Amino acid sequence: MTFIDKLSAAWQTQNSQLCIGLDPDPAKFPAHLQGKPDAILDFCKAIIDATADAACSFKPQIAYFAALRAEDQLEEICKYLRERYPHIPVVLDAKRGDIGATAEQYAREAFERYGADAVTVNPYMGFDSVQPYLERQDKGVIVLCRTSNAGGSDLQFLDVGGQPLYQHVAHLVADKWNTNGQCALVVGATFPNELAQVRAIVGDMPLLIPGIGAQGGDIKATVEAGRTANGTGMMINSSRAILYAKPDEMFAQAARQVALETRDAINRFCV
Amino acid sequence: MTFIDKLSAAWQTQNSQLCIGLDPDPAKFPAHLQGKPDAILDFCKAIIDATADAACSFKPQIAYFAALRAEDQLEEICKYLRERYPHIPVVLDAKRGDIGATAEQYAREAFERYGADAVTVNPYMGFDSVQPYLERQDKGVIVLCRTSNAGGSDLQFLDVGGQPLYQHVAHLVADKWNTNGQCALVVGATFPNELAQVRAIVGDMPLLIPGIGAQGGDIKATVEAGRTANGTGMMINSSRAILYAKPDEMFAQAARQVALETRDAINRFCV
Repeated sequence: MTFIDKLSAAWQTQNSQLCIGLDPDPAKFPAHLQGKPDAILDFCKAIIDATADAACSFKPQIAYFAALRAEDQLEEICKYLRERYPHIPVVLDAKRGDIGATAEQYAREAFERYGADAVTVNPYMGFDSVQPYLERQDKGVIVLCRTSNAGGSDLQFLDVGGQPLYQHVAHLVADKWNTNGQCALVVGATFPNELAQVRAIVGDMPLLIPGIGAQGGDIKATVEAGRTANGTGMMINSSRAILYAKPDEMFAQAARQVALETRDAINRFCV
Repeated sequence: MTFIDKLSAAWQTQNSQLCIGLDPDPAKFPAHLQGKPDAILDFCKAIIDATADAACSFKPQIAYFAALRAEDQLEEICKYLRERYPHIPVVLDAKRGDIGATAEQYAREAFERYGADAVTVNPYMGFDSVQPYLERQDKGVIVLCRTSNAGGSDLQFLDVGGQPLYQHVAHLVADKWNTNGQCALVVGATFPNELAQVRAIVGDMPLLIPGIGAQGGDIKATVEAGRTANGTGMMINSSRAILYAKPDEMFAQAARQVALETRDAINRFCV
């Protein structure tokens, strides 16, 4: 089953367009996990088990594991997700971007080592930097388009022949790179008008939408701008607001509560 | 000592502007190393020892380690370089690009975990995605500008207010991001005219120049386009042409020979 098929099925069976970002920061873990050797793994498993029925996808952010020499725990988390929740796609958030031979190594990392269903990539180095991922036709390739951070406009909002660069990227991916129907785009929730413009450009292509929750994006405006005609098409990501909903032993239950509320808030505007 | 000071000193004491890229691909290792558990470490140490006196910097490409679960060997290689060759700066080629909180994790990975002197980063997400690296004022931040791959033109050559995007990035880094004098740019050797234009924009800022050797860039044209007024300013990278100069037990000696020849070819056009 391809990433896109798995995601489409998850939207229906899970009744959710909430993507749960796994950005484990041990400094924010509850006290009873602090200092444990596999704290990251234990924390993430508890979050996953508590929130899986509210999620259409999980998105581990590899930087948090790389900073802490915890790639082995990321492997375990991906394996856990594949075995326990095979119906929920795993997006490795790595934002890779490099020349072909190097991108081939990163593709092996994402899809063979971690067994992810999709990976985020950066478009700055152009088509051949994305091609090795595209060659895995069952995998999803999620290209950065319009990001939710303050500096996102520095390049992405530059005028390129009458349109901002991020719209050029949306056209490039939709019209040229997505020959196998496996692409998606990252478009931040902080700019609903721009999200709507990307949706108009890319048709039903899935959008990974960070920027709600801790980053402050408005759910109603996001959903109305990002949904497809049939009310799907989105992985609306929330990480910190769910992971760190409560700083004590009740963290997983609190995460579940926030995840369910966020899923429901999204669904409210999808009909 | 800052990255820039260390690099400037290495240009002089090493009499070299050759950067040796460590892209270890076990499939290309000589037979006697095949299948050994620490083959990557052994291969890289042999290359380092054989070529160190010809190099102004070493540049491990993290993708090759990540694909093979060999981060521990990369740690060992960086430690080996710091201890044995403390005068030669280590550039971690990771091309990171993410929002601030995540970039902070990647900065920890590059500078604390691996102890690199500099890291390559992607500009697509703008200033705040680069800021966490810049906050380590002794470290080098090497921003992708004009890359040597075929698809590099897809975005980098787009016209932005009368100049191609890569020149806009060069201005952005030189005029706004480089407040502490710690930045450098990646500019491929495959387009000497464009390299010359970047040099004209950024003054004496160091340039990391991939694309000679296996990628086919011409050394004379590269040096004449990329050198500063005093004949320095470059880390001209070669990886595969040096690492895989010979596929047998003489690989390190052959690598040394190619490294010395490449260093000398660069120096010939620097005076």
